[in-house]
Amino acid sequence: MSFSQRLAHIAHRVERRLAQVLDDSAAGGAPPRLVAAMRHATLGEAKRLRPFLLVECAGLFGVAIEAALPAAAALECVHCYSLVHDDLPAMDDDDLRRGKPTVHKAFDEWTAVLAGDGLLSLAFALLAAPQTHADPAVRAELVAGLAAAAGAGGMVGGQCLDLEADKLGAPQHPSEAHVKRLQAMKTGALIRFACEAGAILGSAATKQRQALILYGECVGAAFQIADDLLDTHGDATVMGKAARKDAGKATLVSVLGAPAAQARLAELEAQAIAALTPFGPKADILREAARFVVRRQM
Amino acid sequence: MSFSQRLAHIAHRVERRLAQVLDDSAAGGAPPRLVAAMRHATLGEAKRLRPFLLVECAGLFGVAIEAALPAAAALECVHCYSLVHDDLPAMDDDDLRRGKPTVHKAFDEWTAVLAGDGLLSLAFALLAAPQTHADPAVRAELVAGLAAAAGAGGMVGGQCLDLEADKLGAPQHPSEAHVKRLQAMKTGALIRFACEAGAILGSAATKQRQALILYGECVGAAFQIADDLLDTHGDATVMGKAARKDAGKATLVSVLGAPAAQARLAELEAQAIAALTPFGPKADILREAARFVVRRQM
Repeated sequence: MSFSQRLAHIAHRVERRLAQVLDDSAAGGAPPRLVAAMRHATLGEAKRLRPFLLVECAGLFGVAIEAALPAAAALECVHCYSLVHDDLPAMDDDDLRRGKPTVHKAFDEWTAVLAGDGLLSLAFALLAAPQTHADPAVRAELVAGLAAAAGAGGMVGGQCLDLEADKLGAPQHPSEAHVKRLQAMKTGALIRFACEAGAILGSAATKQRQALILYGECVGAAFQIADDLLDTHGDATVMGKAARKDAGKATLVSVLGAPAAQARLAELEAQAIAALTPFGPKADILREAARFVVRRQM
Repeated sequence: MSFSQRLAHIAHRVERRLAQVLDDSAAGGAPPRLVAAMRHATLGEAKRLRPFLLVECAGLFGVAIEAALPAAAALECVHCYSLVHDDLPAMDDDDLRRGKPTVHKAFDEWTAVLAGDGLLSLAFALLAAPQTHADPAVRAELVAGLAAAAGAGGMVGGQCLDLEADKLGAPQHPSEAHVKRLQAMKTGALIRFACEAGAILGSAATKQRQALILYGECVGAAFQIADDLLDTHGDATVMGKAARKDAGKATLVSVLGAPAAQARLAELEAQAIAALTPFGPKADILREAARFVVRRQM
């Protein structure tokens, strides 16, 4: 199976699992309007990069796709909730996401806020359920890790720094270090955790877990730079969302210029691949994932 | 110690714990603006009813206040996050909360959305941490219970039903059953879980846990009816928030009329107190709590 086939296969499995989880929510008494908005936010064409990384990292330790799916779906719920809230008029004010109207456009603002809130709680419900792992210590560790990655010291904090730059113009001239910190929080933390979660699910030894965390950090940083380069040079039709949205935002492309950002991207790719050395050839799919993230066109 | 002294004492302990937890967030790299908004949302004069119920229910099984504080603080984070989001212009559009400007008034809308998001993740981070309980199975069970109570089948779902009635006029003539379901989700689920969480922390036997769940359901339902009666007849100055906000909303007061709602309140008080029978006199403080909820003026 080629890399793109494997990516599509896991995306398909995650999609089916998410659909099932949302059916369960509806059966459990969640209001139809809310479930419809949560479906809109999560289902449909998407790469499912974070679930992919989790599944493949767990696979290094012999964890089957099926066994990694609950945690993978939880991670995707958090990612999708963050998109719904980030797209809100008070935040990035986006009308289009993955080629579809954003949730507040397809429904309305209050439904979008609640759909995001519902997805975040759902993620923790999934992680804490016995299906995720037989050992409650593993489940508690996954919850703690996801909460840290998603919270004020992670993704939500990064979004705050990003909007401070965008809306309040603070800081006036962001340093490279500031932008790196912002991005390590905003997009990096969840991608890093995707890789770490695979190691947790697989009961990895500390050294192996550290290696996957480093890999995840490099891939996360590369992902954001590639995204910023795409925003500068990309094609909105191919991307399914608006381009040139980040003009007021602090990115490494705006701070370093495109050629230096491109060079940094190549560096991160090499570091990500080097981090996988302890795993030998069975990590080839993760090496391809690093290349994919660096070279992606959408 | 009288009931009101005990309530104030626990509120003070919870307040100090929340302040410490938010200091830890700041030290852990959460942006100052975000932490300031989270502080604004959580700190200050408040009854801390949910933490009180958790602490006192856990106390029935010999759990010390100190040992119950992390879970109690987690519960309060969820309650406060829900207030921040519910107050947003796209939702209830409230300017005043606990006598202070709401978070989106004191800061702005995007900060309020993120502060709520940050508090929700923080709650799960607290519950999953070893400080909450030595046994990871207890922590995972608390996470699962809170996620269910807070999520689309609980609090967030109830808020959706409430706003559907308010903004979309659906259903046109809500039945008593619809309003009960809405309120059991919107405010009931978290109050019920506060009591159940005390039982979980205390490793209660199934029968004891069921008794506390029933108590929590009655107190939760009573709390909401008392709230609706206050909204109809209460004094905004005493309450620290606007009165007569619920004119368009489905409440038991609007469906049944005030006298029938008042009678239902007395019934729930009696049921709540009866549920405590297995615990004998050591549950007296919880009996007083039921009376307090029914008779509160703010």
